[in-house]
Amino acid sequence: MIFWKLFFNSNKKTRLEKNTDSQNILLIRNLNNKNKIYNIYLSTTKNINLYELEKLCDSVGWVKRPLKKVKIALENSFLTISLFYYNENKKKLIGFARVTSDNSFNATIWDVVIHPDFQGQGLGKELMKQVIKKLRIYDISTITLFADPQVIKFYRHLGFIIDPDGVKGMFWYPL
Amino acid sequence: MIFWKLFFNSNKKTRLEKNTDSQNILLIRNLNNKNKIYNIYLSTTKNINLYELEKLCDSVGWVKRPLKKVKIALENSFLTISLFYYNENKKKLIGFARVTSDNSFNATIWDVVIHPDFQGQGLGKELMKQVIKKLRIYDISTITLFADPQVIKFYRHLGFIIDPDGVKGMFWYPL
Repeated sequence: MIFWKLFFNSNKKTRLEKNTDSQNILLIRNLNNKNKIYNIYLSTTKNINLYELEKLCDSVGWVKRPLKKVKIALENSFLTISLFYYNENKKKLIGFARVTSDNSFNATIWDVVIHPDFQGQGLGKELMKQVIKKLRIYDISTITLFADPQVIKFYRHLGFIIDPDGVKGMFWYPL
Repeated sequence: MIFWKLFFNSNKKTRLEKNTDSQNILLIRNLNNKNKIYNIYLSTTKNINLYELEKLCDSVGWVKRPLKKVKIALENSFLTISLFYYNENKKKLIGFARVTSDNSFNATIWDVVIHPDFQGQGLGKELMKQVIKKLRIYDISTITLFADPQVIKFYRHLGFIIDPDGVKGMFWYPL
């Protein structure tokens, strides 16, 4: 296996790794979870196992969605970010977020999820910081999302603002 | 000029026209504006004159944006809709809206604008109805936007809801 490591510009000791299927994989954390050590990796590849993603969304109680539609949504997202660890060489998906964007001015973040077993350890924060960092590379300056009441505080801590200058998020649903 | 007309399925008498550069153009209104008759057309072509678009955005007092970034934004929008009339065979842009989307679940509407000379005559409403109609063809059911305080009422009349179930629109801006 061709395998190289590179120190990444960050406060934490992180590494950019490249494996055989040329996905960029970043080690973001060595996590001690219930006396087990997990190496948590981040990847922006869109080659995501849809069943794993469904299982992850199911773990936080989200409504089931047709896999066909999920596939289209991933393909047409500007950015997808996955968090995972390896278990016997198999990726175990524990976090996810995706972004729609015009690649220029605006981006909207959707489907932010961390598996309940891995919540409360700063992984959501790290995930969001990486999303913002990647969007800023494209000079996208209006980064938006729609937050459920229970996660508004979480996003506030990351610098997100509710209704700036009275701008309101609005939704249209089919009847 | 190859030119054909077709009656469109709508309450109003509208026509789908196709011109030589194979853009779909829809006549949406015969407008009497200051004793002059305007045939107002709608098109979803992305072949938009960036200077015309800039002029239109300028007419409603929006901040100037780099044309290079506008071009990228249009290219990466899921949908762009223009309203215009012809003046001596030249298109005069009087309305615009664009949408980012994952082509599956969600869409976000940006840059909705009607030229001040043509406001108050239902064109904004017609523009938005066409946006929603086109998104529904793709079975996109979460249609979102961020509304300035002065247009919240306009979107409410179109069926848009503020903060459903306490979901809040949030923004992150670079410092």
